[in-house]
Amino acid sequence: MQEIPGGITAPLGFTAAGIHAGLKRKKKDLALVVSRVPAVASAVYTRNLVQAAPLVVTRENLAREGKARAIVCNSGHANACTGQRGYEDARRMAQLVAQEVGCPPWQVVVASTGVIGVPLPMEKLEEGLRRAAALLSPEGGNEAAEAILTTDTVKKEAAATLFLGGKRITIGGMAKGSGMIHPNMATMLAFITTDARVPKELLDRIFKWAVDRTFNMVTVDGDTSTNDMAVILANGLAGNSSFTPKEEEEFSLALKWVCQKLCRMIARDGEGATRLITVEVKGAPGEREAQFIARAVVSSNLVKSAVFGADPNWGRILCAAGYSGVSFDPLKVDVYLGAPGEPLLAVALQGSYHPFDEDRARELLQREEVIICLDLNQGEGKATAWGCDLTYDYVKINASYRS
Amino acid sequence: MQEIPGGITAPLGFTAAGIHAGLKRKKKDLALVVSRVPAVASAVYTRNLVQAAPLVVTRENLAREGKARAIVCNSGHANACTGQRGYEDARRMAQLVAQEVGCPPWQVVVASTGVIGVPLPMEKLEEGLRRAAALLSPEGGNEAAEAILTTDTVKKEAAATLFLGGKRITIGGMAKGSGMIHPNMATMLAFITTDARVPKELLDRIFKWAVDRTFNMVTVDGDTSTNDMAVILANGLAGNSSFTPKEEEEFSLALKWVCQKLCRMIARDGEGATRLITVEVKGAPGEREAQFIARAVVSSNLVKSAVFGADPNWGRILCAAGYSGVSFDPLKVDVYLGAPGEPLLAVALQGSYHPFDEDRARELLQREEVIICLDLNQGEGKATAWGCDLTYDYVKINASYRS
Repeated sequence: MQEIPGGITAPLGFTAAGIHAGLKRKKKDLALVVSRVPAVASAVYTRNLVQAAPLVVTRENLAREGKARAIVCNSGHANACTGQRGYEDARRMAQLVAQEVGCPPWQVVVASTGVIGVPLPMEKLEEGLRRAAALLSPEGGNEAAEAILTTDTVKKEAAATLFLGGKRITIGGMAKGSGMIHPNMATMLAFITTDARVPKELLDRIFKWAVDRTFNMVTVDGDTSTNDMAVILANGLAGNSSFTPKEEEEFSLALKWVCQKLCRMIARDGEGATRLITVEVKGAPGEREAQFIARAVVSSNLVKSAVFGADPNWGRILCAAGYSGVSFDPLKVDVYLGAPGEPLLAVALQGSYHPFDEDRARELLQREEVIICLDLNQGEGKATAWGCDLTYDYVKINASYRS
Repeated sequence: MQEIPGGITAPLGFTAAGIHAGLKRKKKDLALVVSRVPAVASAVYTRNLVQAAPLVVTRENLAREGKARAIVCNSGHANACTGQRGYEDARRMAQLVAQEVGCPPWQVVVASTGVIGVPLPMEKLEEGLRRAAALLSPEGGNEAAEAILTTDTVKKEAAATLFLGGKRITIGGMAKGSGMIHPNMATMLAFITTDARVPKELLDRIFKWAVDRTFNMVTVDGDTSTNDMAVILANGLAGNSSFTPKEEEEFSLALKWVCQKLCRMIARDGEGATRLITVEVKGAPGEREAQFIARAVVSSNLVKSAVFGADPNWGRILCAAGYSGVSFDPLKVDVYLGAPGEPLLAVALQGSYHPFDEDRARELLQREEVIICLDLNQGEGKATAWGCDLTYDYVKINASYRS
């Protein structure tokens, strides 16, 4: 597997465009991604009970034959809590794209992100969609990645390539942050494309596997949005034959790598964040237990604040693990701090205080990426979660979005 | 039931003292509460898997005969994650108090709050306990309430009296905040006293009922500490006979009232808080469901930030309800904002946008106490949760405790 430049249009047969349709004041707000041929599609949706209209419509669409030709995504309006009209608008978006692309409306994935409770300005969208369709190009991935952003400060793209059975397979992706800013800009969106040929059942399984270990392990503020969605389209143009088990594993790892890269960008770009926090849990009774603990630690306001203040408060780390809901023996747990490429520093051993160099700990906590490692010493389960520090700016951004 | 001044020494037969033993630099740090006669005792402990030594020792002690003569509580050190020595120190605290008071060591409730992972300075404590015992008085409740504080800005006391079967019964209490500041000042402690005569089983049941609806419904930052504990002592000196069912209800409501008053003070005094947020959920499928939703809303960083910014972001409220884990129909939910003594303002009806006066909403959100009300319109379950806004100062306090 090799990292390559580019994003959603890196794989064969995908074109994209990103334009300003007028939902936001100035910034790009409408993205369109199209596959030359129908692609096998798989999606993972928010676990929030309140689900935005585009999610409902996308789920209906993909249930029909599990294939998609296009993804349309607007920013600026979430089309959530918009009543009956919201569903009609989301369906209309799919129809408009279908007309432009020349496919049935159920082959369109619809996504939105932005303000909750305000109906979509459909005239602007309609006109914008026509313009976007005319601009579709294999170089359009970058502009599409820009058009799905809300308060994100950087575009998030990743791509990788690998050879399987002599065929070159490419995976590309774009995402927007989970930071919730402005009135309910409440969404983590991820769109992945690949030219691999992957049967529907296998794609569903691999994609869920990767999402569970990446997008489901990112948190900025612990809130789960009404619009979160991750979608993958596999159009098969790489011409590979069926995966052997080993090839399946290689493809899965490459897919996970692309997702993980996007996740790290999302966490680092969390609202007001100054640092990426990576929490690594090992020695847990099982993987699921490790995931729960990693998420609890990376979501703790106290841990996040301590990292912002470069304060080696290991008690807060252990405390968060303690309320994660996982059953474990706290007296076996070791806690370490670290940074990429640096040896880990033990700050607590066997659940108790262990003398450590405080200056060194503070130094590690001031790095761009802070690693918190918990070794439970009671099993083989491991997991990684990503998040960011809690800063004055998080509060500022979320308290005063209109001023 | 009538509110009266005072706190933990308001009921008959309780004395208390609060002194500076030298665990903290200047502030009072050691509280002692003593009942003239052995009191029936009931306790509720943190759900955190990592439990501090004093909790473990208190649980052991009360398991012996369910009675207590004294409560000792120090602030400054949590005696959590302190290994074997922590248990020995907590047992030693109980022994020292038992000697002073003249009771078996298992009739002593031990509590600590403060820094995690640092052993207790036992010499200072020993000397302090002797001094505190000499100062015990029926007027000492106020000083005890001061000595259990960590970063709280105000003392938290409440008391109420009621007549049952011709006997005057008094309930008093003191508490410290759940705000976690300084290195893991991580604790909500509540101590309740009453002169009512209540059998152990009934006291356990009533106290759990009251705690579930009060202390378990308060959140400042969502983190659950290793040292959280609520204890009640009932010494029977009021001389009442067995409760009739109606009297039991009246006593329960008075107890809940005292707990609730302490809770509101805890929430309002949350770290950096400028406002008390009360979330009222009604029309839920059941009480438990209502509790989950109320807690999710009052714990949401986004809701808390929005209240700080006086931003009527009702979508965030609905979104938090949506990820509470409760199954409900979002399209039936109405959301209101309010303030004590003011009519509620509908900001969303049937899960969708409802036109409202934005200026009026902002005005309500700037009150000292903000009420958020969700009517699910799908049952009889209701619950209330208390919390506070998320402010710059929360981050400041928790990021830079040592500077």
